[in-house]
Amino acid sequence: MQHYFVDQPLTIGQSIDLPQNISRHLGKVLRAEVGDHFELVGQNHHVYEAQISRLLGNQVAADIIKSLDKNVELPVNVTIVSGLSKGNKPEWIVQKATELGVLHVIFLPMDWSIVKWDQKAAKKITRLSEVALSAAEQSHRNVVPTVEYLSGLTELYHRDFDVRLVAYEESAKRGEETNLVKAVRQTTTGSSMVAVFGPEGGVSPVEISGLVDHGFVLAGLGPRIMRTETAPLYFLSAISTLTELI
Amino acid sequence: MQHYFVDQPLTIGQSIDLPQNISRHLGKVLRAEVGDHFELVGQNHHVYEAQISRLLGNQVAADIIKSLDKNVELPVNVTIVSGLSKGNKPEWIVQKATELGVLHVIFLPMDWSIVKWDQKAAKKITRLSEVALSAAEQSHRNVVPTVEYLSGLTELYHRDFDVRLVAYEESAKRGEETNLVKAVRQTTTGSSMVAVFGPEGGVSPVEISGLVDHGFVLAGLGPRIMRTETAPLYFLSAISTLTELI
Repeated sequence: MQHYFVDQPLTIGQSIDLPQNISRHLGKVLRAEVGDHFELVGQNHHVYEAQISRLLGNQVAADIIKSLDKNVELPVNVTIVSGLSKGNKPEWIVQKATELGVLHVIFLPMDWSIVKWDQKAAKKITRLSEVALSAAEQSHRNVVPTVEYLSGLTELYHRDFDVRLVAYEESAKRGEETNLVKAVRQTTTGSSMVAVFGPEGGVSPVEISGLVDHGFVLAGLGPRIMRTETAPLYFLSAISTLTELI
Repeated sequence: MQHYFVDQPLTIGQSIDLPQNISRHLGKVLRAEVGDHFELVGQNHHVYEAQISRLLGNQVAADIIKSLDKNVELPVNVTIVSGLSKGNKPEWIVQKATELGVLHVIFLPMDWSIVKWDQKAAKKITRLSEVALSAAEQSHRNVVPTVEYLSGLTELYHRDFDVRLVAYEESAKRGEETNLVKAVRQTTTGSSMVAVFGPEGGVSPVEISGLVDHGFVLAGLGPRIMRTETAPLYFLSAISTLTELI
């Protein structure tokens, strides 16, 4: 079933006029018909089953017919912080991170970032938020991840997170669990966790010491060198494995 | 340090003429100089440190100066089987899976594949093998993953694997570890594991029953719906988490 998000409270029995983007997608792209069913997520992140009651051009109305007991969110609220990287990497970090359960993605310039956003930032964030929305629809999320631009790491220091990590080679002792595993074991449902990932050049020594001074723990992600866009996906998959599979 | 693979045995003290692709990359792309160091992996998958001894146009010679105790391979030998998918998805499945430690990637047509390779297969595999090589160089692997095309799933049934999985929604009982975790716990260092991933359309019921008849176990990958190119990356990250981080 198709899966859409609306920014309003929903209740069973309610009849609503769908916003234009959803109406157009159902009516024009999918050529849906009266009586067709789809999933609709309301303001409270709860999933309902809806049925099309009326189709007039670009205006589609639907009835909320039942509540679906679906929650696909990670038990931990994960924020990914990514140093500005080249090309379309930010787009697919957002797309893949959304499929993998991220709640919040922050992009910011870091010492070794080759690209700058500056004035382009607002436009980029708008575009990346659209990517997050369509990925959240495709992966049937209960929440659409938010995407944000910060001017630098220091803006991050004052934010409130239960667990703070930076992806970096750690001095792992033989037989000891890695800091990532230890960190996840500290969390409980609803805990917030942030992880910082460097750009192509990596995280600079100055940035590392600044992060460590502000309570960030160095967390290794296995022995292989991963590209800047791959590391956050490994990280999110690891969180899911440790909290949803085990 | 740069990291290259040569298809010959290496020993300390040995002096070798580097193949043209490596010579060109060092000499023309990186403008390396005599005395520069780099990593060279020989036939036995062992990593050595080498030093450039001579640069003549496109011909670079180097001395093997020391053995490096580096092994970044997953303890389990993982084969990813991917139903033919559209666009450049195969390319980046190979690239990312290589970064994440895969040993062997197989592409094959499945019931719900929209694309066909047929005559194009040989050319595609050549290109995908180049992608695997450069990703293996970037992620400093000990082994370059192999890429292969099979005409269908049945060709897979007669291959020898210790653990066989197909990525599919499983009927997970509350509080029970998932089949993926159980499967990894069954493995020991050197065990071989294969996992089948459907194309955009997914795995057909006929394919599922055929796979199950041949010893494949349904393994869920968490509650979120992932795209065909994302699921193998989640899978490899999960294997790494369970065998390298815990």
